[in-house]
Amino acid sequence: MAGNSYGTLFRLTTFGESHGEALGGIIDGCPAGISLNFDAIRSEMQRRKPGQSSIVTQRKEEDEVQFLSGIFEGKTTGTPIGFIIPNTNQKSDDYSHIKNSYRPSHADYVYEKKYGVRDYRGGGRSSARETSCRVVAGAIAKQVLSDIKITAFVSSVGEIFLEKPYQEVDFSLIETNAVRCPDKVVAEKMENYIKEIKKLGDTVGGTITCVIQNVPIGLGEPVFDKLHAELGKAMLSINAVKGFEFGSGFCGARMKGSEHNDLYNEDGTTKTNLSGGIQGGISNGMDIYFRVAFKPVATLIQKQEVLNNQNEIVAQQGKGRHDPCVVPRAVPIVEAMAALVLADFYLINKTYQE
Amino acid sequence: MAGNSYGTLFRLTTFGESHGEALGGIIDGCPAGISLNFDAIRSEMQRRKPGQSSIVTQRKEEDEVQFLSGIFEGKTTGTPIGFIIPNTNQKSDDYSHIKNSYRPSHADYVYEKKYGVRDYRGGGRSSARETSCRVVAGAIAKQVLSDIKITAFVSSVGEIFLEKPYQEVDFSLIETNAVRCPDKVVAEKMENYIKEIKKLGDTVGGTITCVIQNVPIGLGEPVFDKLHAELGKAMLSINAVKGFEFGSGFCGARMKGSEHNDLYNEDGTTKTNLSGGIQGGISNGMDIYFRVAFKPVATLIQKQEVLNNQNEIVAQQGKGRHDPCVVPRAVPIVEAMAALVLADFYLINKTYQE
Amino acid sequence: MAGNSYGTLFRLTTFGESHGEALGGIIDGCPAGISLNFDAIRSEMQRRKPGQSSIVTQRKEEDEVQFLSGIFEGKTTGTPIGFIIPNTNQKSDDYSHIKNSYRPSHADYVYEKKYGVRDYRGGGRSSARETSCRVVAGAIAKQVLSDIKITAFVSSVGEIFLEKPYQEVDFSLIETNAVRCPDKVVAEKMENYIKEIKKLGDTVGGTITCVIQNVPIGLGEPVFDKLHAELGKAMLSINAVKGFEFGSGFCGARMKGSEHNDLYNEDGTTKTNLSGGIQGGISNGMDIYFRVAFKPVATLIQKQEVLNNQNEIVAQQGKGRHDPCVVPRAVPIVEAMAALVLADFYLINKTYQE
Amino acid sequence: MAGNSYGTLFRLTTFGESHGEALGGIIDGCPAGISLNFDAIRSEMQRRKPGQSSIVTQRKEEDEVQFLSGIFEGKTTGTPIGFIIPNTNQKSDDYSHIKNSYRPSHADYVYEKKYGVRDYRGGGRSSARETSCRVVAGAIAKQVLSDIKITAFVSSVGEIFLEKPYQEVDFSLIETNAVRCPDKVVAEKMENYIKEIKKLGDTVGGTITCVIQNVPIGLGEPVFDKLHAELGKAMLSINAVKGFEFGSGFCGARMKGSEHNDLYNEDGTTKTNLSGGIQGGISNGMDIYFRVAFKPVATLIQKQEVLNNQNEIVAQQGKGRHDPCVVPRAVPIVEAMAALVLADFYLINKTYQE
Repeated sequence: MAGNSYGTLFRLTTFGESHGEALGGIIDGCPAGISLNFDAIRSEMQRRKPGQSSIVTQRKEEDEVQFLSGIFEGKTTGTPIGFIIPNTNQKSDDYSHIKNSYRPSHADYVYEKKYGVRDYRGGGRSSARETSCRVVAGAIAKQVLSDIKITAFVSSVGEIFLEKPYQEVDFSLIETNAVRCPDKVVAEKMENYIKEIKKLGDTVGGTITCVIQNVPIGLGEPVFDKLHAELGKAMLSINAVKGFEFGSGFCGARMKGSEHNDLYNEDGTTKTNLSGGIQGGISNGMDIYFRVAFKPVATLIQKQEVLNNQNEIVAQQGKGRHDPCVVPRAVPIVEAMAALVLADFYLINKTYQE
Repeated sequence: MAGNSYGTLFRLTTFGESHGEALGGIIDGCPAGISLNFDAIRSEMQRRKPGQSSIVTQRKEEDEVQFLSGIFEGKTTGTPIGFIIPNTNQKSDDYSHIKNSYRPSHADYVYEKKYGVRDYRGGGRSSARETSCRVVAGAIAKQVLSDIKITAFVSSVGEIFLEKPYQEVDFSLIETNAVRCPDKVVAEKMENYIKEIKKLGDTVGGTITCVIQNVPIGLGEPVFDKLHAELGKAMLSINAVKGFEFGSGFCGARMKGSEHNDLYNEDGTTKTNLSGGIQGGISNGMDIYFRVAFKPVATLIQKQEVLNNQNEIVAQQGKGRHDPCVVPRAVPIVEAMAALVLADFYLINKTYQE
Repeated sequence: MAGNSYGTLFRLTTFGESHGEALGGIIDGCPAGISLNFDAIRSEMQRRKPGQSSIVTQRKEEDEVQFLSGIFEGKTTGTPIGFIIPNTNQKSDDYSHIKNSYRPSHADYVYEKKYGVRDYRGGGRSSARETSCRVVAGAIAKQVLSDIKITAFVSSVGEIFLEKPYQEVDFSLIETNAVRCPDKVVAEKMENYIKEIKKLGDTVGGTITCVIQNVPIGLGEPVFDKLHAELGKAMLSINAVKGFEFGSGFCGARMKGSEHNDLYNEDGTTKTNLSGGIQGGISNGMDIYFRVAFKPVATLIQKQEVLNNQNEIVAQQGKGRHDPCVVPRAVPIVEAMAALVLADFYLINKTYQE
Repeated sequence: MAGNSYGTLFRLTTFGESHGEALGGIIDGCPAGISLNFDAIRSEMQRRKPGQSSIVTQRKEEDEVQFLSGIFEGKTTGTPIGFIIPNTNQKSDDYSHIKNSYRPSHADYVYEKKYGVRDYRGGGRSSARETSCRVVAGAIAKQVLSDIKITAFVSSVGEIFLEKPYQEVDFSLIETNAVRCPDKVVAEKMENYIKEIKKLGDTVGGTITCVIQNVPIGLGEPVFDKLHAELGKAMLSINAVKGFEFGSGFCGARMKGSEHNDLYNEDGTTKTNLSGGIQGGISNGMDIYFRVAFKPVATLIQKQEVLNNQNEIVAQQGKGRHDPCVVPRAVPIVEAMAALVLADFYLINKTYQE
């Protein structure tokens, strides 16, 4: 209810502030008997980790996950998987300057108004550091979903767009560059632009496209818990996300029915896939694909006007080590949230079948 | 779990197929002591009702709601509000032709695969007729939220856009035309275009913009249940929706942080509102605004290829009485879902306060 | 949250007051493809119905259930099953005398204090008439559980006890008498006692024993949602219930471990069954059995002191048509709630299996 | 869903096996701004801790709780409170002898059948060590409930009963003896009996009575989530519990209505309190009291027949350091679970009020 859990049957609950002792979570409902691939989990963590390249934040966070329960002799036991990610490099003093002030387009102000109290150290609970727990759980969810393949990549940074449709994209190129854009030329443009932005102490937004393949027919619940509605919520719950569209998305709103309908082949597949792999909220076996919009990071390394708790506007020099553009590191987070949603529907779907 | 409930503290559960005896629902968690305005509920129903103008479906559905419980001497009692909406004009035979076939971009096929059985009469549970129950509950939620004002309007039909920002829109014009677009000239263009499309037996998509005013600071739960994430899910759960964006939305992904940040005024309001009234998932007291994309209705009054249950592609003449464009009638549905989300967070928020 | 739903995957939500237009409910999550036996549902309703014998209330309630959705051509479709039970014989005027007064050991007073308003007609939502909806849903849950056999019977009325253990009971005798006690001699004593009590305008309590057979191993979730914990909650949620014990129950608290442990047979069954078919919250395949205590009905047909809303104690003559002893009619309710609990765990259990 | 969470608005989720690295939990929904009394938390932990007296298990478990989030400068912040309790003295080898065998009346067998895999080290997740997390959360819940006073004590051990009603009990005596029975003479008898039982390598059951005072009117939700139904579930979820009764309990089932009804005083209190402080599932402001039955611990320090995974019955010598009687250490657990239930209803109740 208080918003720190996701999913119903495959359910992640997280805790932790950016500058507390540790973050962590509990995964409840993970099926028993899965031989966990810990390297795969670690690898997802590495993709999200700060300091992985010159275009992301240079904060030193080890992001080492410790599993405390629910796993025995390498296998899941069906009991809750508890884990923690210690905060090894909190540097609390970095944040003393914001103790009494509310940074623009941050959550400082609303937390203080909502709760009457605020952990002002670096964003506290509202920090994107919390997403590290999502990546851990998502990496396990992926292993529950073995055959289903979830792939995200950066499809735009600022005004620089990867113009090709996902069907023409070579997924093997995603991890070959720091931006995670699967096109050598576009990726280079994006990278250079991010470096430029960084030099200015500014930040820039971007979009991520996600493709889910090998989805069985039937995932998703009709009416309120449609598969795309839950995917949308999952994506919008990621820090900095401002929009979500799947299949034809906002373009679909400009089309005619005669153009938009996906005609069937005899095997139940469809000739086109403007539906984005989902009909009436239920997967139809075609690729699911969607696009997520991220706003520019609000923390600038520039002088900026902030509000303080004396109701004064004062100039403040932004400092710290922040991402100039969030999308490269958000790729594994998008995948993780997609995996959580699918794992949940995958388990729910089992209950309908004889 | 099975997807027919929405909300946690203010919770709507619905049932009903388009051609069953009745649809209906239960609203659980409505606070006691509210003197319900039944005219307001009826009026919302009228806005969604078929046959209200020449540009919407001419089906005759009375959409008369009967309240069965939870109200005593005109006031809510805190016990569940049960209601039904009888189906008075089912015309089941209209649908015998689709008994053994799956219409393109409908849910026919996935329902049959998911459940092994399908109520083939007119879409059954996947019909947008189900949204009538949402409108009933939303109309009650609005009364719980008394001071909060929720206003939706049509902002595009096909390629015809209302270009002005919502701040320049005169809300009092929304109900003055059949399209529900608050601009006389644009509305007329849209209306003419819809009529033209209808003549062709085709359909067209569109977008709806929704604005929420007078929102108290503090609604929304951080991390997974962010206010905009829940609004996104609510909107994406409406039939035909393909996308959701709030505040700067997809445009925000193209901006720089120095352009995007909303600087504070001394009273805690912000000079700009690219955040769309929400910071870190929590309302900040500024207007909330978002945009929802609807695809064109899939049912065409044209000959179309369908798949039958013998795995054959056959031509089929579409018939029936369908909407050429869904957005005019979807305006009250968008408002209703927004009201449900806000009522839920409004009640949750009470639990945090001393 | 507001307490009108039961279950998670097989989920019943109910509405309705004793003197409103109708009661009803929604069953969400019922698996698709079940050919419902409507006679079996009607038969369970008959067992709960007032007026079925001379020892129960003589109110005339038809208790005719109307199914409005979720069933097509006799089969469940996987969509929510909506149903109503019209109130055909409300006789509201019977209750005008309690409009301004709070009857002892009724919920009148606490409803008014909790909600600030109260539907004073015959107990409103707190009336046991609400259990009719549970019986409908339970009768469907039984059909989901086909092989599992749930049998309840009256094991005491006042000081008259059926002394034999359930293993020696002939279940076929339960429905042969009005008390639903499976022993001719004891049943007759109980029946005579209830008639005597009724003549005095008094009431008496009793207990019901319930036995669940053919339960697969593995139902129930460890830690908080133990199978017996949920059964306990389900029983304690029935009007007038004051206690619940399973297996050795309160007697077990007086025993030594060396007496209480159930030694295994080689096939995994146990030689004794003091555990009551549940170990660590999970069914072990042995019979589950438990006992439920019902207090005497609070409504007496005698003069009694009541509190009025002027804070005065006044004498009031009880009137109306009430049960002198609730247990005979509560037998199908106990079975229904047990069926709801088991159906839920049965579906949850499916999600753990490869 | 998988059973490791309790509560809805004040919600505890736990993880951990008896011999894993740590147990722990997340408390979500704790109101902000509470200055936590850490001594009070530690003191509750001490009451549950092994080794506290000669009549409880002599295992050495430090039970030191580490809070990792949700608390800032000594106050709750409204964000989730994550905590761990490291396992400092696992002694895994103690349990190698049960790796391939199922102890009678333990959960070994059903866990293996349910999940297909089992952490055989000392009961794993089914160990009562898990209750340490409940005590942490309960100690915080008590601080949320400040004015409400929850007091539990041992009311029987085997056949030795504390005969007086709770109203005549001097609560200040509870902690004066190792049994936690508030009567010097009875406590001594119980203590001697437990020592005797322990010498024999046997165990014995007992009961705990719990009294909740200063409860505001209105806690509890009608119909399915009645206050006593939730209390019953909470108690039955504690390891070894076989029964629950509140107010008149099983005795009430033997009474007549004319004896059982609680007549009102003019101030809304009642002259008697057979209802146990709850009417129709809602607190009426009178003391809530209930009784919980615990079976004897199943682990005996005797030779006993066990089933092995070759389907053979073999004799096995029980060993280890177990409690001869569980009730003295279960007193704080009963209080903790009562506190969790009340905190949840306390928060839910806020949402109904204007």
